[in-house]
Amino acid sequence: MASISFARGVPSPDILPVAELAECAAAVIEAEGQTILNYGPAFGYLPLREWVGAQHGVAADRVLLTPGSLMGFNFVAQHLLGGGGAAVVEAPTYDRTLGVLRGIGSAIEPVPLSKAGLDLDRVETLLGADPPPKLLYVIPTFQNPSGRTLSAGQRHALVELAAARGVMVFEDDPYRLVRYSGEPEPTLHELAGGEGVIFASSFSKTAAPGLRVGYLVLPEPLVVPLTAVAASSYIAPAQLPQAALFELIRRGRFEHTLTQTVDVLRARRDAMLAGLEAEMPEGTAWSEPDGGYFLWVDLPAGVDSSALLADAARAGVTFVVGTDFFMTGEGQNAMRLAFSFPSVGEIQDGVAILGALVRERAAAS
Amino acid sequence: MASISFARGVPSPDILPVAELAECAAAVIEAEGQTILNYGPAFGYLPLREWVGAQHGVAADRVLLTPGSLMGFNFVAQHLLGGGGAAVVEAPTYDRTLGVLRGIGSAIEPVPLSKAGLDLDRVETLLGADPPPKLLYVIPTFQNPSGRTLSAGQRHALVELAAARGVMVFEDDPYRLVRYSGEPEPTLHELAGGEGVIFASSFSKTAAPGLRVGYLVLPEPLVVPLTAVAASSYIAPAQLPQAALFELIRRGRFEHTLTQTVDVLRARRDAMLAGLEAEMPEGTAWSEPDGGYFLWVDLPAGVDSSALLADAARAGVTFVVGTDFFMTGEGQNAMRLAFSFPSVGEIQDGVAILGALVRERAAAS
Repeated sequence: MASISFARGVPSPDILPVAELAECAAAVIEAEGQTILNYGPAFGYLPLREWVGAQHGVAADRVLLTPGSLMGFNFVAQHLLGGGGAAVVEAPTYDRTLGVLRGIGSAIEPVPLSKAGLDLDRVETLLGADPPPKLLYVIPTFQNPSGRTLSAGQRHALVELAAARGVMVFEDDPYRLVRYSGEPEPTLHELAGGEGVIFASSFSKTAAPGLRVGYLVLPEPLVVPLTAVAASSYIAPAQLPQAALFELIRRGRFEHTLTQTVDVLRARRDAMLAGLEAEMPEGTAWSEPDGGYFLWVDLPAGVDSSALLADAARAGVTFVVGTDFFMTGEGQNAMRLAFSFPSVGEIQDGVAILGALVRERAAAS
Repeated sequence: MASISFARGVPSPDILPVAELAECAAAVIEAEGQTILNYGPAFGYLPLREWVGAQHGVAADRVLLTPGSLMGFNFVAQHLLGGGGAAVVEAPTYDRTLGVLRGIGSAIEPVPLSKAGLDLDRVETLLGADPPPKLLYVIPTFQNPSGRTLSAGQRHALVELAAARGVMVFEDDPYRLVRYSGEPEPTLHELAGGEGVIFASSFSKTAAPGLRVGYLVLPEPLVVPLTAVAASSYIAPAQLPQAALFELIRRGRFEHTLTQTVDVLRARRDAMLAGLEAEMPEGTAWSEPDGGYFLWVDLPAGVDSSALLADAARAGVTFVVGTDFFMTGEGQNAMRLAFSFPSVGEIQDGVAILGALVRERAAAS
């Protein structure tokens, strides 16, 4: 029986730069072990902060390195929403973000995100509430779960709406550099001139997730309070993974690793799109992402994704049902497919299995 | 001018096992990079969990590895106290613990800790409150900041009082293996048969702080909820530092590293005790720790530790004033001295400088 995961939003092990990171880790411990094996600063390893800052046109002291960017989102949520208040999110959005917001008891206000983009009228209404929400959380590029990317026009509009109401934006952008086609849009952070937007990313998709190196680029007023939250959480992050990663960059091998990753994943995306085109019945629609790990499938009317998943799992194929990415039970007719983990051959086989099941259920409904 | 820190509760760089950890890190990435550089389990690297579990007589699934034990305390505080309730702490106690509890808005109830031990009558009164407190936080061995260790009798009594009232105990025990003299007392965790006590420790004092490898040994009912808090915080911890540390253990080098550390730090403790004996005027008293990083000095009547610190800093010697370790302004007449960082020579010089300043102030008061 096939065992093919379209559920796991993780890279396949073969694309991780194992041999190079082994060398880099040994080299940095030998060179700097007395520093990086001791307690370090709460904001992380300075050379990597400097490099990240340069990528985003800010000084190193605006960069907070965190053990993964989800940790950074937790710090922001704790600081901005710990005392109450609402967060505006895309619907669908990243399920772990919903989990964090639920965990701190935040009110969550969803804004529909579709093929047409984000519903900006709804954003304007929600940001216009009194009191306004404390945070607008968006994943504007190759979104998890939808694979969609906001247009330049929508980005401009979002930044203006948020600035007009003084609402802090959290731009979660881990997939940006994992691009297979098309041209990059400006970040919200750039469009806002670095103010009023917290930019979050990580090296999980560009180097290796297990390093757990993420970062926040912070507006100046948030630097001191969020560094204090980090210090109170873990004193300091582990510098070894951060320094090993910086060594990969310093050796000029980061670009090379990223290019290899992008080439492998582009072929997987292409295989998945071709498979869907060949296998799915009329009435099925899907996003066509220019990058990232995921695409979103709207199933034919009457096909329930939970029932489909039960069938598919028996046939050895898994995915995540659409409902996981909404607050209120939507998404029953949709699924998220990740193409980051299986090989091209597995993708072809898996989509053929899914396609047969969808055709069967669509015909029966 | 001297620049001698009795403030920093950190090891000196020379005692870190740099060369060995460089080898271990490279070896584990080469052998297991495709696993440990990818997303891992929220509870951490399994072989290390198994080893930790064996040390404490529990199965691996009771062990949650965290990026430092302070992170683990944050998880417990979030889970047990996030919805309100009081925590009972020793006074003095670890300043970062007070910071975490303040941060989540917990009520904090201090119990005096002195040369005579913990005030068990006060513990009984506080645990008898209605509703009872949610957590009893203690550092029973070589406490930070006092250097004091609770006797076996006090440990038995504490465990009984907590069990009688159903109050969860957090036993923070990072210094236990860093022992220079005397015999170990049983842990509260052992005395309680593993129930009703969360045991926390780390490898920061026994291998290297920068690895950020701490752990919680959890009562069974807390395993699932605290693992969920960890997953929601950072998906998974970095496995590289955990695996590198386990490789050090697997090679049989952990004991050797620890023995070297203990030998170096014993000499520093001895130098500090000898210096205090030689330099401090009558009316000064200090704890005589059998291990750990710290000792506590009660200054002669009328000598204020903040004023003393101002003088000492000008002369190049720093320490932490006693007030940092209390809730309510106590400790003005006390200071915490760390002997983990300076060399024996620096300790002799630094204590001589401090002694002269204390004698001067004591004579003037």
